[in-house]
Amino acid sequence: MERFSKNQLERYPFYLKFLKVLEEKGEINVSSPTLAKELGYSEEQVRKDLQAVSDEAGRPKKGRNIHQLIETLETFLGYRQKTAAVLIGAGHLGGALLNYPYFEDMGLSIVAGFDTDPQKVGKQIGGKEILPLDKLAETIKEYKATIVIVAVPSFSAQEIVDLALKSGALAIWNFAPTHISVPEGIVVENVNLASSLAVLSHRLNFESSKGE
Amino acid sequence: MERFSKNQLERYPFYLKFLKVLEEKGEINVSSPTLAKELGYSEEQVRKDLQAVSDEAGRPKKGRNIHQLIETLETFLGYRQKTAAVLIGAGHLGGALLNYPYFEDMGLSIVAGFDTDPQKVGKQIGGKEILPLDKLAETIKEYKATIVIVAVPSFSAQEIVDLALKSGALAIWNFAPTHISVPEGIVVENVNLASSLAVLSHRLNFESSKGE
Repeated sequence: MERFSKNQLERYPFYLKFLKVLEEKGEINVSSPTLAKELGYSEEQVRKDLQAVSDEAGRPKKGRNIHQLIETLETFLGYRQKTAAVLIGAGHLGGALLNYPYFEDMGLSIVAGFDTDPQKVGKQIGGKEILPLDKLAETIKEYKATIVIVAVPSFSAQEIVDLALKSGALAIWNFAPTHISVPEGIVVENVNLASSLAVLSHRLNFESSKGE
Repeated sequence: MERFSKNQLERYPFYLKFLKVLEEKGEINVSSPTLAKELGYSEEQVRKDLQAVSDEAGRPKKGRNIHQLIETLETFLGYRQKTAAVLIGAGHLGGALLNYPYFEDMGLSIVAGFDTDPQKVGKQIGGKEILPLDKLAETIKEYKATIVIVAVPSFSAQEIVDLALKSGALAIWNFAPTHISVPEGIVVENVNLASSLAVLSHRLNFESSKGE
């Protein structure tokens, strides 16, 4: 299997999103230059990205079949399977994630939320029950929850992750603003607001042509 | 000025976070190998990352002064200035961002939230007033809000961005799950959950040694 870069993987949902807009408009085919122009990527990048997931080449002039490309991308991204996940930390951010309406479409099924706050335990957020932490191990095992979404404060993130991994989780989607350590073979993907802001600020201060 | 990669910029907040933990513990110096081991980066990467922001070299054995390095990183990341921002879309995600307690520490000051929902307008979320969209232009101008945080649904994101840019905003921090187009010189940084999940899923399915 071809090796995909992080940046490349991050682009595929943007292709998919735009292809669905085109499909809804009744379009049948799309060319690489059209995708490139709309999404702000280079034409070469678009061709490489699409060739990496699909054997079928686009036909010159006519381009690629939109319906087929959507199917290819959804399969590649795992949207046509179901992966079970648990979410830990039902605060503001965790609550927003529990309410996020698109995870099911992406093949991600959050089976329960967890929190230490007795005010939250037993309630539902976004239709998901909030359970106490001592139910974490059995829930991960029962639902074969491979992904753990971590939305706890920094100071408790590592402890929570260790606990989840002991119960059989294989991937950590870390929204806590701190580094977490995991053993070899365990996947960590960070959504770090400070990191994203660092990129934005740097570009704003040093690359924007309109900066003061 | 040296050119920084996105991945490199994204690492600096993790250094800073760990350095603050060390400082709180009363540590004075830190070596590159220690940082590398704790954060899961290579030693070479750590040395390169730190040299890129600081003239001062670490002394062999002794390492770098933690207090000084914190100061360097905070200055580099813009945490010691104040940049005004507005947030548009006070739903679940927007609300979580308005409640996020660390933006002020990062030099980001959200001066107001905006929403079209009359139920939300006039209320406060996370201590920030929610204003109607027709106040957007004057608020951006009054506070010189250079950053616009976009947390609206996909279908209205482009329209909102166009409106904000017309009022003088220079950077878009886009949390809407869609591509947005901006003129040359305007900065866009996406926080896209689908992109992050794409990276996580791919690693889980094709790189994790424990995958089934």
